[in-house]
Amino acid sequence: MLHTSEIKAFLDAKDKKGLKDFLSDYGAEEIADLLNHLEEENLLLVFKAIDRDLAFTAYELLDINFQIALLDLLPNKLVTLIINDMSPDKRTALFQELDNEMLNKHLKLLTLSERSVALHLLGYPENSIGRLMTPDYIAVQANWTISDVLSYIRKYGENSETLNVIYIIDDKGILVDDIKVREILIADPHTRLEEIIDGRYTALSVLDDEELAINVFSKNNRVALPVIDKNGLLLGIVTMDDVLRLSKQEDTEDIQKLGGVEALEEPYMDVPIPLMIRKRAVWLIVLFFGELLTASAMAYFEDEIAKAVVLALFVPLIVSSGGNSGSQAATLIIRAMALGEITINDWWRVLKREIVSGFALGLILAIIGFIRIGMWNYFTNVYGIHWFGIAATVSFSLLGIVMWGTLMGSMLPIALKKLGADPATSSAPFVATLVDVTGLVIYFTFALLFLKGTLL
Amino acid sequence: MLHTSEIKAFLDAKDKKGLKDFLSDYGAEEIADLLNHLEEENLLLVFKAIDRDLAFTAYELLDINFQIALLDLLPNKLVTLIINDMSPDKRTALFQELDNEMLNKHLKLLTLSERSVALHLLGYPENSIGRLMTPDYIAVQANWTISDVLSYIRKYGENSETLNVIYIIDDKGILVDDIKVREILIADPHTRLEEIIDGRYTALSVLDDEELAINVFSKNNRVALPVIDKNGLLLGIVTMDDVLRLSKQEDTEDIQKLGGVEALEEPYMDVPIPLMIRKRAVWLIVLFFGELLTASAMAYFEDEIAKAVVLALFVPLIVSSGGNSGSQAATLIIRAMALGEITINDWWRVLKREIVSGFALGLILAIIGFIRIGMWNYFTNVYGIHWFGIAATVSFSLLGIVMWGTLMGSMLPIALKKLGADPATSSAPFVATLVDVTGLVIYFTFALLFLKGTLL
Repeated sequence: MLHTSEIKAFLDAKDKKGLKDFLSDYGAEEIADLLNHLEEENLLLVFKAIDRDLAFTAYELLDINFQIALLDLLPNKLVTLIINDMSPDKRTALFQELDNEMLNKHLKLLTLSERSVALHLLGYPENSIGRLMTPDYIAVQANWTISDVLSYIRKYGENSETLNVIYIIDDKGILVDDIKVREILIADPHTRLEEIIDGRYTALSVLDDEELAINVFSKNNRVALPVIDKNGLLLGIVTMDDVLRLSKQEDTEDIQKLGGVEALEEPYMDVPIPLMIRKRAVWLIVLFFGELLTASAMAYFEDEIAKAVVLALFVPLIVSSGGNSGSQAATLIIRAMALGEITINDWWRVLKREIVSGFALGLILAIIGFIRIGMWNYFTNVYGIHWFGIAATVSFSLLGIVMWGTLMGSMLPIALKKLGADPATSSAPFVATLVDVTGLVIYFTFALLFLKGTLL
Repeated sequence: MLHTSEIKAFLDAKDKKGLKDFLSDYGAEEIADLLNHLEEENLLLVFKAIDRDLAFTAYELLDINFQIALLDLLPNKLVTLIINDMSPDKRTALFQELDNEMLNKHLKLLTLSERSVALHLLGYPENSIGRLMTPDYIAVQANWTISDVLSYIRKYGENSETLNVIYIIDDKGILVDDIKVREILIADPHTRLEEIIDGRYTALSVLDDEELAINVFSKNNRVALPVIDKNGLLLGIVTMDDVLRLSKQEDTEDIQKLGGVEALEEPYMDVPIPLMIRKRAVWLIVLFFGELLTASAMAYFEDEIAKAVVLALFVPLIVSSGGNSGSQAATLIIRAMALGEITINDWWRVLKREIVSGFALGLILAIIGFIRIGMWNYFTNVYGIHWFGIAATVSFSLLGIVMWGTLMGSMLPIALKKLGADPATSSAPFVATLVDVTGLVIYFTFALLFLKGTLL
């Protein structure tokens, strides 16, 4: 573990040579970690003191926001070297976060060939697998021998993103098979590739959504997958480490949206407080306007409440029960959709399951509610002679509202997906708010039904 | 894509030979997918018709619950072959789900050497990295030449889980370095390993928590990491595909808990409805009992409500605003802890940030609430001459309750972690319920303060 205090000592002593020697003992991950923790004014000095190759590798490991900050901080000459050296997939991830002006400036710093690679990758739609891929891989032909392949790798393998899988293409560049490097390593050097390949491979399609890559990787035991166009032409590869990072990031976004927060783009502690407040305020205000409707709904039933104040007592219980059951259903369905377990075409099967679940859950709460009111009244007589009507109102409302919450919670994410929106937008708080207003209407309707002529 | 209908035709015709030929054209992932979709009565027949190696590879790709079901269904002889052939990490994952009787039965089916491996891995604590590792790796010594290494791999590489990274150990078995196979492939065959290794490696500790592996993998660009004991002895490796699967599974559990559901162990559609109801009912009932306290809190203020029915109108608004802000804070903190961005030691820094955020968010809602009541009253005079007192009550309550929700939501997960519990247990609905009762107390306290002598 590298500490900023040790670095500080070198900087204070202006001992550039000592700093350089000291830093040369560490690996790229430790260097990246160190850069993350340095004060801004020391960044440039330290970065320049790191061995160039190591510095470049460490740069690729930094958060994208930090990478952008460094682009501004470092001299143009160094930036040119860095971005020309970056692996194309990491560079695409960085470039797509730049604004137009920054992007143009940095594209100009690339060599002609790197620029063409970068523009090509940026040409694929955002969130498509094309943006995630790298063109650095090894492709060979089926009639080569193992020893041909090995010497080819020795010559050209340096720049390949992964050497764990070798791709076999025909003379038109169409993907024929992939083969794990282990198969090559354990095979006899005189064997021809065509004798050991089986023509079975899993490939990603360049225009498919990034999320699909996550699903394919978690089902297949691969460290890299080839990316092809609709004609089967091999365009690049996607590696597992990028997918793991993407997967964590997508899960984080989903979780934050489910909690009713706009997705944060940086770690919690790094988000400036004003931005944090804005990200949270947006939804909180939207939900608040939704909740203001409850005040209107309540006002509509003000006469009933004035006649039977006892009705007001159960309002928080009723609305939260609807909200909680809605949160549960929404969470389950959103996650199942994200994992590809269910699609919008399954809506009818989901609906049937949720009707059964919602009814059962509602019934359970209705029974508990009934017993609670009955027992309370037995011991304290707090609800008087009308306890049965009150208990019936609360119980039937609970049954209705839990079913309603469950159905809204499960169908809303599917409907959003169908409309092309992100299902996670129908966060737990969002569903709860929607259910609250209707919940009040259900509650007071049952009250009128059971208590008309007695309390009301 | 393999369809069950095609298989059905062979089965109906009792054409075993045809089925065998047909299936031989497919890969392990497709076979696993097919097995997943077959009716139970056809499983055994189809499984036996698959080429043995392929069947065994496909078996490893199945869900663990399905693997267990097959253990029961397949004849003992086949089970023996399968579990002896499984990679030790996958087998450990399967074995730890078996009950004691099943476990003993299956341990006895293993060969002596496989049994010793299995017992060894099962000896590490649940959720520890030891359970995740496999002892199938290639380890060589630093004084070997590249060509020594290549011929060693050719001879012993068959059983290695990954050949992407080769480990270098000293004569006592202490890990000295790891080297990507690419470095070996592009190096001159006569070079000695010690000339190209740099002594820098990242290793996992065998007793550490599995979640740590996910963090280390997503920060380091590796396909496998070595696992060492406290003396640095190399015990095994953990591969990226297992970590990706684990990561998805942990995120799913977190998301489900956040939504107020007990974590499901199977995909949504595969969970039998009664189990689904039970998983949801547990929390729904707990939360319901919590919410019953709101009825008691409301009853405590029944006289105030009777005097000023208008107070009841804002109850849903007040309680949900507290719940929503609590959900946001809980979600952000739980996720940041899961990603290792904050630890329990950061509680004071989190608290400071959340006090600021909570105050700002509360103020925003308070202002909106005040304006809403003021404007409504201006146009409709619905709140009469006491509108200012009502507006002040609602606004101050909103400020108080949003701050309270934010603080509870952020501190509760940290407190749970400190107590050794899973922070995700303090789900959004859980925090919302906790905040509801106190929210009512805050609201009616402000009401007494602002409306005493006028409405109350």
